[in-house]
Amino acid sequence: MTKVVTVKRKALAANDSQAESLRRRFAERGTLVVNLISSPGSGKTTLLERTVAHLKERLRLAVIEGDVATERDADRIRALGVPAHQVLTGGACHLDARQIGTALEVASLEPADILFVENVGNLICPTTYDLGEDFKVALLSVTEGDDKPFKYPAIFSRAEVTVITKADLLPHVPFDLDAVRDQLTALAPDGRQLVTSATSGEGLDEWFALLEERLRAKRSTA
Amino acid sequence: MTKVVTVKRKALAANDSQAESLRRRFAERGTLVVNLISSPGSGKTTLLERTVAHLKERLRLAVIEGDVATERDADRIRALGVPAHQVLTGGACHLDARQIGTALEVASLEPADILFVENVGNLICPTTYDLGEDFKVALLSVTEGDDKPFKYPAIFSRAEVTVITKADLLPHVPFDLDAVRDQLTALAPDGRQLVTSATSGEGLDEWFALLEERLRAKRSTA
Repeated sequence: MTKVVTVKRKALAANDSQAESLRRRFAERGTLVVNLISSPGSGKTTLLERTVAHLKERLRLAVIEGDVATERDADRIRALGVPAHQVLTGGACHLDARQIGTALEVASLEPADILFVENVGNLICPTTYDLGEDFKVALLSVTEGDDKPFKYPAIFSRAEVTVITKADLLPHVPFDLDAVRDQLTALAPDGRQLVTSATSGEGLDEWFALLEERLRAKRSTA
Repeated sequence: MTKVVTVKRKALAANDSQAESLRRRFAERGTLVVNLISSPGSGKTTLLERTVAHLKERLRLAVIEGDVATERDADRIRALGVPAHQVLTGGACHLDARQIGTALEVASLEPADILFVENVGNLICPTTYDLGEDFKVALLSVTEGDDKPFKYPAIFSRAEVTVITKADLLPHVPFDLDAVRDQLTALAPDGRQLVTSATSGEGLDEWFALLEERLRAKRSTA
């Protein structure tokens, strides 16, 4: 097992260096990069669809989709007239910085004001792989249960923003929102928490405003 | 990356050999072993709670829980009076055969008629790690969306049984059950598909009967 750990550490170090080079590239171009991470089916693609539809008229947007298989998510974004590139990982459980670099080479995603990266559906593996993003966003749907932040502490402590999704289903599922808020505050005292529903529209304006504010902040300090 | 792949292949080969030794142990003892795999929040622990409550009077049951963090799931099973051991993986995204062997050494789980292993919440990583089980069960909740089998083909093709959970929420979510059935049939033509709700009780009798039938079958061929 020690050998596995050593090799994994080397792979992570190589990834970190590639991520730093991506970060410089994005800084030069003034592109805000958002890395979306959650379980399968928490609503990452649906949140992106709403976001793209809302922002695409006034901002240049692009999306990199990560999945084990199928082009389905990229197709959903392209249907909205925004460039999207699908990375198929085969069996791999996360995206890495090298794949982001390759996507930028082979697909026409730049120039972009905001580049969204939708990671592979997985609450664990994507956590440690820096993709050169400005910040990570964790999504948690109310149907997944209110014990998840403490069961998956790494992602919920590293994400600067947690988006609670599918709030329209709250009347139908056992989910103690206050308990989840307390766990998130314990794990990420400075993190933002949004409660949203792509179906009812709840909380989406706050999400859009957060993105525009982060883009302005990045450009004002550039 | 080649070195990572080589080391991973060696780790998998070591795991396979440990799994075979577990499989012999379980065969000698007549223990049916079921490896439950799904996304976080698909309802693995809730299905186990219902199963344990239903079967514990007439069968000797035991549970090994895998989580990145918290003893919460094992506590939920122990509250029903059935032995449960929590494996905390730290950051690891799946259980391995060595951890199952250690759990059997340190916890009083045997003798058991059925040993349930609830894997770490993850649709990808647990797929390739044999734990000496008789069969894998994949869970998919209706809230996760109807595109998941084709997006995570490895687990849905390797699981002999797929349990669709939270069917009581079908009126509230977009989920094309026929489309999911078609995907599952394409991936696992001989697989069993159950539609269940731990809330309404739908489909649970079929699940209990399947477990008892598999236990009988294992013992009659022993």
